[in-house]
Amino acid sequence: MSAARRPIEYPDATPEVRAVYDDIMLTRKADWVNNFWKVLAHDPPTLRRIWGNIKQVMGPGELDPLTKELLYVAVSASNGCRYCIASHGTAARKKGMTEGQYSELLAIVGLANETNRLVTALDVAVDAAFL
Amino acid sequence: MSAARRPIEYPDATPEVRAVYDDIMLTRKADWVNNFWKVLAHDPPTLRRIWGNIKQVMGPGELDPLTKELLYVAVSASNGCRYCIASHGTAARKKGMTEGQYSELLAIVGLANETNRLVTALDVAVDAAFL
Amino acid sequence: MSAARRPIEYPDATPEVRAVYDDIMLTRKADWVNNFWKVLAHDPPTLRRIWGNIKQVMGPGELDPLTKELLYVAVSASNGCRYCIASHGTAARKKGMTEGQYSELLAIVGLANETNRLVTALDVAVDAAFL
Amino acid sequence: MSAARRPIEYPDATPEVRAVYDDIMLTRKADWVNNFWKVLAHDPPTLRRIWGNIKQVMGPGELDPLTKELLYVAVSASNGCRYCIASHGTAARKKGMTEGQYSELLAIVGLANETNRLVTALDVAVDAAFL
Amino acid sequence: MSAARRPIEYPDATPEVRAVYDDIMLTRKADWVNNFWKVLAHDPPTLRRIWGNIKQVMGPGELDPLTKELLYVAVSASNGCRYCIASHGTAARKKGMTEGQYSELLAIVGLANETNRLVTALDVAVDAAFL
Amino acid sequence: MSAARRPIEYPDATPEVRAVYDDIMLTRKADWVNNFWKVLAHDPPTLRRIWGNIKQVMGPGELDPLTKELLYVAVSASNGCRYCIASHGTAARKKGMTEGQYSELLAIVGLANETNRLVTALDVAVDAAFL
Repeated sequence: MSAARRPIEYPDATPEVRAVYDDIMLTRKADWVNNFWKVLAHDPPTLRRIWGNIKQVMGPGELDPLTKELLYVAVSASNGCRYCIASHGTAARKKGMTEGQYSELLAIVGLANETNRLVTALDVAVDAAFL
Repeated sequence: MSAARRPIEYPDATPEVRAVYDDIMLTRKADWVNNFWKVLAHDPPTLRRIWGNIKQVMGPGELDPLTKELLYVAVSASNGCRYCIASHGTAARKKGMTEGQYSELLAIVGLANETNRLVTALDVAVDAAFL
Repeated sequence: MSAARRPIEYPDATPEVRAVYDDIMLTRKADWVNNFWKVLAHDPPTLRRIWGNIKQVMGPGELDPLTKELLYVAVSASNGCRYCIASHGTAARKKGMTEGQYSELLAIVGLANETNRLVTALDVAVDAAFL
Repeated sequence: MSAARRPIEYPDATPEVRAVYDDIMLTRKADWVNNFWKVLAHDPPTLRRIWGNIKQVMGPGELDPLTKELLYVAVSASNGCRYCIASHGTAARKKGMTEGQYSELLAIVGLANETNRLVTALDVAVDAAFL
Repeated sequence: MSAARRPIEYPDATPEVRAVYDDIMLTRKADWVNNFWKVLAHDPPTLRRIWGNIKQVMGPGELDPLTKELLYVAVSASNGCRYCIASHGTAARKKGMTEGQYSELLAIVGLANETNRLVTALDVAVDAAFL
Repeated sequence: MSAARRPIEYPDATPEVRAVYDDIMLTRKADWVNNFWKVLAHDPPTLRRIWGNIKQVMGPGELDPLTKELLYVAVSASNGCRYCIASHGTAARKKGMTEGQYSELLAIVGLANETNRLVTALDVAVDAAFL
């Protein structure tokens, strides 16, 4: 047993896992599945559950698909998750994110982290107009 | 001296601080200044510096103003900064954020925090296609 | 049983707990004990252990006492721990921290949080000169 | 487009970027610029803005230069930013930080992270004496 | 529109929301629903999704129910989520958590946060025996 | 001086450091010491202090040894400390953690991080029944 789990490739996957891989590829109109899912595949109920969550949350809604990816990238950048920045950054670029937009996104992530700390440390009272 | 700093109201502010308040109100087409700035006013160089940053980062660019506010709200929600959620949430609503969009934003913040941890804990290798 | 634990006052404390309270007051040349210790007192081994840690880490060393308190306040501000900012902020002021120094400290905390995110998100390689 | 951005070296930089590089080297009395700035150079307004912030916040003030660097290192260590620990750790050593002081700094960072969680989890009320 | 959302009580809930409330009460053998769900009810798809996740993740498995609650409390304490500590702490006590076990749990949360920072700051290489 | 500290092997260690190494090996019934301690050995008082904390907190108590390790792994996974996940994950496996239990632990860590953010962002009031 090791700390990191090896990706499970399609030919080695159980039918249950392949069904999720198939749905991921169909939904994304892609012919491959990225490592996150192949590593989650060691735990099929979690694989199915997390994919179900992503499909629902990132699917059609009131926010357009690019904005949804930008939000995912921003939270991942704030949390310092390199893999998530790479994967959702790639998805955002496929949906139209420009390098200029990415720069602006990072600037907001950085500045929000700065002001979030100042506000909390200074214990600023919420203005009545915001309630 | 106390841990929290009292907001400094316009009539009590120095000319240097009033100049920043004036620019905030002019830029935002508002007739009041929120508590964050009034608390930062105890330290005029920081007040001027942070306002300069916000003005530049949140000003016109490749991302539209609503998307910028949504990103600010998302990072603040991920970091648990109540004041920042309230202030930037109000700004986002003024720029058109619907309650449905806010629900979707929060769902993304929550889910990204979940998958960020799974990815990091499982030490998933970045796929070549993302590099 | 409730989530928050009530502070245990000196007259209600066991001899084991009183011995720690006494050492805190003696070390700090104070005639009272703050709530953190009174709440930890529900678990005497943890009370004794944490006090022992604080006494060793914050005691005499190569960094002067004020610098040590400033570092404690900075980490607490970065983590958003209101109680810790208030208690260590008070301790820092007693050791000579000016309001101007506190403003500079907060500015560093905020800016470090901003650049920490930019560096991590951009996955900047460590320069050879830093190794 | 890739997730990580390549450092832009001086000969390849625009005049606008070179002006910032020049100011960094002049201010620091150095003949090179570290990777953080060379990566930020893909986005000149952010390069100029962040450098302006660092120059103001880390410049002369009420806290001495070494203490400022120690605070930057402490926040970066608390946030787990390896690059920032390496770069500001090097700067702190140049300003006189001893290995013993670095050990004490890390001990404070660790212990503050421990007590910050205990205080928050136990929901300790702020003592009147701290207000 | 306000930042915080009011809890939606059973009599005011739509049939879709009531169905989730009913399943929560049935699963937990309780005659009431806590505020988290009543606030999520403003967004029925998220209410249903999050409840489905909790039901699956916290339901029968290889870890016993008490251990699962202890893990939930520990992560919530590490993240400083007061509501989550209160709600999952209450659930853990109902499943048998003693005050002594809670004290030990908090001690582990605190110490892990301390050593996590030391390990990361010191950039300790993973021992071959752990791979 | 470099940012990362080299592990100090037993033959190169001072008697003071060897005494801690000996106690670690005796307590753990092991014939080697992992890198964390060998790196802390550059600062003997911290080495002794942290080992004393670990020995007390992770020693016999009301929680069984496996549950204690699971809690340590969960907090480390939530904080993204790779070394700590690897070292405490190995310890947990030696104490009986199955791969299925590890999967469930990670699922709880992920989900708690999701709901912690939703609860905080929505500013949910603590139910009276939890107080």
